[in-house]
Amino acid sequence: MALNKEEMSEKVLAIAEALINEGGVDNLKARTIAEQAGISVGSVYNLFGDLDGVHRAVNMRLLDRLGAAGIAAMAELERVGANDVRHRVLAMAAAYVRFVEAHPGSWPALLAFNRRRVTPQEPDAYEARLDELFDIVAGVLKAGDFDLDDKRRALAARTLWSSVHGIVTSGYVAKSDGRQADEIWQQIELLVGIFVKGLTREGLERGGAFAHAGSKPA
Amino acid sequence: MALNKEEMSEKVLAIAEALINEGGVDNLKARTIAEQAGISVGSVYNLFGDLDGVHRAVNMRLLDRLGAAGIAAMAELERVGANDVRHRVLAMAAAYVRFVEAHPGSWPALLAFNRRRVTPQEPDAYEARLDELFDIVAGVLKAGDFDLDDKRRALAARTLWSSVHGIVTSGYVAKSDGRQADEIWQQIELLVGIFVKGLTREGLERGGAFAHAGSKPA
Repeated sequence: MALNKEEMSEKVLAIAEALINEGGVDNLKARTIAEQAGISVGSVYNLFGDLDGVHRAVNMRLLDRLGAAGIAAMAELERVGANDVRHRVLAMAAAYVRFVEAHPGSWPALLAFNRRRVTPQEPDAYEARLDELFDIVAGVLKAGDFDLDDKRRALAARTLWSSVHGIVTSGYVAKSDGRQADEIWQQIELLVGIFVKGLTREGLERGGAFAHAGSKPA
Repeated sequence: MALNKEEMSEKVLAIAEALINEGGVDNLKARTIAEQAGISVGSVYNLFGDLDGVHRAVNMRLLDRLGAAGIAAMAELERVGANDVRHRVLAMAAAYVRFVEAHPGSWPALLAFNRRRVTPQEPDAYEARLDELFDIVAGVLKAGDFDLDDKRRALAARTLWSSVHGIVTSGYVAKSDGRQADEIWQQIELLVGIFVKGLTREGLERGGAFAHAGSKPA
């Protein structure tokens, strides 16, 4: 039975994502997709316009999946009643680490795609999707009772994401995979712990609450 | 006049680095190097063993250059008498941003090389060079009068580096180069400011100095 257009699109995207994961964007070729999907190269182009269109559609799926992973991590925190901010940010970071590990080629290719393609013509839906992801992290920070306005909280969320991303992907040399994973997690724990303490201190400074914090008898 | 072996090595490495900067490691080919250097492919291999040997030698030069940039940034801070830790860490971050921008292909290729090649056989000199770079950052933190032992200070230095690296390279989408640069610098300023505040707070907590900090009349 022939697949309908939507089913064929899904099949093409699954193949495309596997190709990118295996060999990066250089491994994404219309001919390979067509062969594996059992359709003509022309049909691939009919579905997605061009190879960039295929890649953009793969990226949208990735962003959706990352968003779902973030929301699932939040739901799990709600379930176990964890409302400590440090704990919550660490859970989000852990979800991101798992996501990056599960998408070794396709996620770096998405980021490279962003760097390469950004123009004023870029569809806003794409950027909006990224901003939704940052909103999840900003929501976690909002629960933290820091003295952050919306703009600075959004910047802090992007900064945390960039930093965790850097820790996961910077490739600091360790002698074995085990030590590498330990190093990544130690850096994330230090970052998140110190960052939350720093936001707390900033809030105290702005609120003039230092005297209050020390108002117990010396 | 024929170049001696050392001069030819330098010439080969300069060509190799330019090739990597232009097109990544896929652009590094013994034939291209040989053509541009005016020598045979065999001569390239005689000098460096294999292409990985060429790449490793390019990487060593990059690490030396980054180390020199860090030391120059420190010297400039000494010259102007800047001894505030936040200011110092920001100056190191700025030096790193400039370095990454000046090496758009070769620096990502070095990090990818690390991820790909790490084995127990990897020469220790290579890892030692990276650790020397982290020592510079750790030295800046040491001046900060935080309550950090050597091990945690070294971890904090690696964490700061990974985080700044992530901010510079994560490819968060902005509509123009100008906005991208602004975004990067805003994230770095927030990260460093909050991180230094967090280390300070950690020090106060450990030192039990909160009461002291608030000992002025309420």
